Amino acid sequence: MPQRSPLDLPEGDPFGPHNLPYGVFTTPHAPHLRKIGVRYGNHVLDAGAAAAAAASPHAEQLGADTLNPLMAAGRPVWQAVRAEVLGWLTDPAHRSIIEPLMHPLPTVALHLPFEVADYADFYASEHHATNAGRIFRPDGEALSPNWKHMPIGYHGRAGTLLVSGTPIVRPQGQHLPPADTSAPPHASSPTPVFGPSLRLDFEAEVAFVVGAPSTVNTPVGLSGFHDHVFGVCLLNDWSARDIQAWEYRPLGPFLGKSFATSLAAWVTPLEALTAARTSPPARDVPLLPYLDDSAAEPGGLDLRLEVALNGHTVSRPPFSAMYWTAAQQLAHLTVNGASLRTGDVFASGTVSGPRPDELGCLLELTWGGRQPLRLPDSTRTFLEDGDEVTITAWAPGPQGVRIGLGEVTGQVVPATP
Amino acid sequence: MPQRSPLDLPEGDPFGPHNLPYGVFTTPHAPHLRKIGVRYGNHVLDAGAAAAAAASPHAEQLGADTLNPLMAAGRPVWQAVRAEVLGWLTDPAHRSIIEPLMHPLPTVALHLPFEVADYADFYASEHHATNAGRIFRPDGEALSPNWKHMPIGYHGRAGTLLVSGTPIVRPQGQHLPPADTSAPPHASSPTPVFGPSLRLDFEAEVAFVVGAPSTVNTPVGLSGFHDHVFGVCLLNDWSARDIQAWEYRPLGPFLGKSFATSLAAWVTPLEALTAARTSPPARDVPLLPYLDDSAAEPGGLDLRLEVALNGHTVSRPPFSAMYWTAAQQLAHLTVNGASLRTGDVFASGTVSGPRPDELGCLLELTWGGRQPLRLPDSTRTFLEDGDEVTITAWAPGPQGVRIGLGEVTGQVVPATP
Repeated sequence: MPQRSPLDLPEGDPFGPHNLPYGVFTTPHAPHLRKIGVRYGNHVLDAGAAAAAAASPHAEQLGADTLNPLMAAGRPVWQAVRAEVLGWLTDPAHRSIIEPLMHPLPTVALHLPFEVADYADFYASEHHATNAGRIFRPDGEALSPNWKHMPIGYHGRAGTLLVSGTPIVRPQGQHLPPADTSAPPHASSPTPVFGPSLRLDFEAEVAFVVGAPSTVNTPVGLSGFHDHVFGVCLLNDWSARDIQAWEYRPLGPFLGKSFATSLAAWVTPLEALTAARTSPPARDVPLLPYLDDSAAEPGGLDLRLEVALNGHTVSRPPFSAMYWTAAQQLAHLTVNGASLRTGDVFASGTVSGPRPDELGCLLELTWGGRQPLRLPDSTRTFLEDGDEVTITAWAPGPQGVRIGLGEVTGQVVPATP
Repeated sequence: MPQRSPLDLPEGDPFGPHNLPYGVFTTPHAPHLRKIGVRYGNHVLDAGAAAAAAASPHAEQLGADTLNPLMAAGRPVWQAVRAEVLGWLTDPAHRSIIEPLMHPLPTVALHLPFEVADYADFYASEHHATNAGRIFRPDGEALSPNWKHMPIGYHGRAGTLLVSGTPIVRPQGQHLPPADTSAPPHASSPTPVFGPSLRLDFEAEVAFVVGAPSTVNTPVGLSGFHDHVFGVCLLNDWSARDIQAWEYRPLGPFLGKSFATSLAAWVTPLEALTAARTSPPARDVPLLPYLDDSAAEPGGLDLRLEVALNGHTVSRPPFSAMYWTAAQQLAHLTVNGASLRTGDVFASGTVSGPRPDELGCLLELTWGGRQPLRLPDSTRTFLEDGDEVTITAWAPGPQGVRIGLGEVTGQVVPATP
C-alpha cells in the first residue's frame, strides 16, 4: 500500500487548509537553523524553502528565523501570504515541489515562534474574577468596582515566555506558612517563610499576538483590532498562589507569575477564526465609547478549550463566555497613548465558564485548595512535581470543520535545590 | 586666545575622567547613523570611531548602534573598555586622534542608549510607600504587611520607555470624577468618566540596567549584582494618579503608568559609583537569607537627586534613604527562577526622603493635591500642560569630585484631541 502524501489530509483534519498556523522549527540535521513552518495535518511545511522555490514576493519574510518580519508586514501581506501558502499546499501543480518540504511533526523541534516585545495579561472572565475575588478576598467584594467598566490587566515578564513543552521548574519564594495562605494576612505582623511554592497552579488562557506596530499617542481603538493583531496562541500562565497571595498588595502579581509562562508553538492567524466570531455576553453597565462594541461586529471568539492534567480532562473552559473581548482589551491597552510593537502579546486571563467543569485553574477547581480535585487514581489540590498540564482548543471553522489551536503543554519538575 | 581643547576639562567637572557615561548619538550630518558615545565634560566622544582608530579589541561592541552588545559582554569587558576609553581621553599620545572625534553636546541628538528588554519598577522608599499608602488608602495600613519583608515591585511597559527630552503627551483614560479621586471608591457603583488625566505627576527614580544575562532557574543572588548590572540611569515614571487610583485594584498600576516613562540618555557605569556606596537604613525586621545583606558590602548608593519644575528646584530626594537596595531588588527579581536579559531595566520606585523637601513626586509634595506647591510665580497641585520636569543627580566620586548623572527631562504637552 503506498504511503499517503502529507498533502492529502483526512477530511475534517483540524489542521487543514482553513487553519494554516505558523511556527518556527528546526530539524535534527540543522538544530541551529530556525525556519518558519506552517502546520498542515501532522506535518510542517518548510515555508521559507517553499517561498524560495516559488520565487514568492514574500520569500524574505518567510525565510526569516522568527515570525517577526511577517508579523510586522501588516494585514495585506498576511492575507497574501496565507493565500500563497494555501495554494502551495492544495494546488496539484505545486505538489512535486512542496511534498519534499513537508516534515513529519514528530521529527522537528518547535521554538518560540516570535520575539516577544511586551507581555500584558488581562482578567477578562467574569467567572474567574468573581471566583478569585471570593477566594483571595473573602471579606471584600468579589469584583472590584472598576471591573465592569474596563478590562483590568497588568504587565507580565516578557523574558520568561517559554515555548510549549519547556519543563516548568517549581518556583521558590516568600509565602506565608501554609496555615495562613488560604486567606489574606490579618495578623499585624505575619512572618513569611522561604521555599518551593506549595500552591503551584496553571491558568488556561488565550493570547493575542500583535503584528503591525502602532505609534505613541495614537490609540488603535476597537476598529484597529484586525489591522494590528496577527494571530492567536494558547497560553498557560503558571501561577504560584502562595507567593502571589503574599506579594500582590498593593502593586499586583509579580514573582508569583514571572518564573514561567508557556506559549503554544503555533500561532493561528486571526483569519482562520472568522467563523468562530461570536457576540460577547450582555454588558451589565454602559461602557465608555472607546469600549462600546454594541455597534461593532461580534468581538467574541467561540474557542472551546480543554485542560488535561496527566492526560485526564479536568475542565472545558468556553472562551465565548469571556466578558471582555480581545478587541476591547487592545483598545484599552492603547487608549492612554501607549504604543504597540511587533511581538507584543496580550492574554485574556484565566478562561473560566459558569459551570464547575468549566473553570480554568486549580484555584477555582479546588476552591483555594479546600475541595480536592479527583483524578482517576489520585486527587489534587495544587500541582505536584511530575504533573503535566496540556491545554488544547478548537474553534468552529467554515463548512463544519474544526480549527485546531496548537496545544500548550508543560511538566512540573522539582524546585532547584 | 586659543580655544580650549575638549579634552582639557575644568577641575572637578562632574563628567570628568571618573565618570565616562555611555550613550547613543547621531549628528546632523548623518541623522540615521546611531553611534555609541562617551560623555566627557560637555562633549561626546565618538567611541566607535575611536575604537576603530585604535584597533581596539572591542571595536565591534563600541561600533554598534546600541549599547546592547557591550552590555551583554560582561564585567571583564566593561572594565577593559572603561580603561581603554579613559586612556584615549587622558593620554596625550592619543590626543591628535581623539580630539577630532569629540562632538559638542549641543550639536548631537541623543537616543535611547539600549534596546529595553523587560522593565520592572520597585517601590523601595519607605517614605514614599508610607506616604502613598496614607494618601491612596487613608482607611487602611499605610504599609502593606509584606513591605518590610521583600522589595515590592511590578512589571511596567518596556515599549514606552522614551529617551529624555521626548515630549510627554498628557494621557487620556478612565477616572472617577474629580470629587471622588482623592480617596478610594467607597460608593458601591461609582461611574467613571473619560478624558485627559487631571492628576498628572512625575516620579523621580533611579534605574538599573542589566548587562549580562542570566539563565532561567538560576537566581543571581545579592552577590551577582556587580556581574549583571551594567550601569545606572535617572528615570521619570510619569504617573496619571486619577487613572491609577481607579484601575489599580486588584492587579496594580497599568495605564496610569504605561503611556510614557522617561529614561536619561546617559548610562553611568556602576564602577563610576564605587565611592558612592553606602549602607542602607537599618532594617526593622529580620530578612530572609536571600535578602539579608548585613554581611555584604554596603549596597546603598549616595546619589543626591534634584527635581526642577519649570526651572525651580522643588525637591532634593536622597537615594541613600532607600530602604531596599538595588542588589536586593535584583536578588528578589530572580529568586523565583526568572531570568535576566541584556537590556532589562529595574527602577527603584519614587525616591523620597523623610523631609518635606525630599519628596520625589507631586502626590507627596502636595499631599494628594490638597496642599498646593508654591512656585515663584504660581502654584501646582499636579502638572499642567507646558510644565517641564528635569531630574538631575550627582554622587560623591574619588578625591572629592562629583560624578554627575545624565539628566532626565520632559515637557508635558496637551492631550491629543
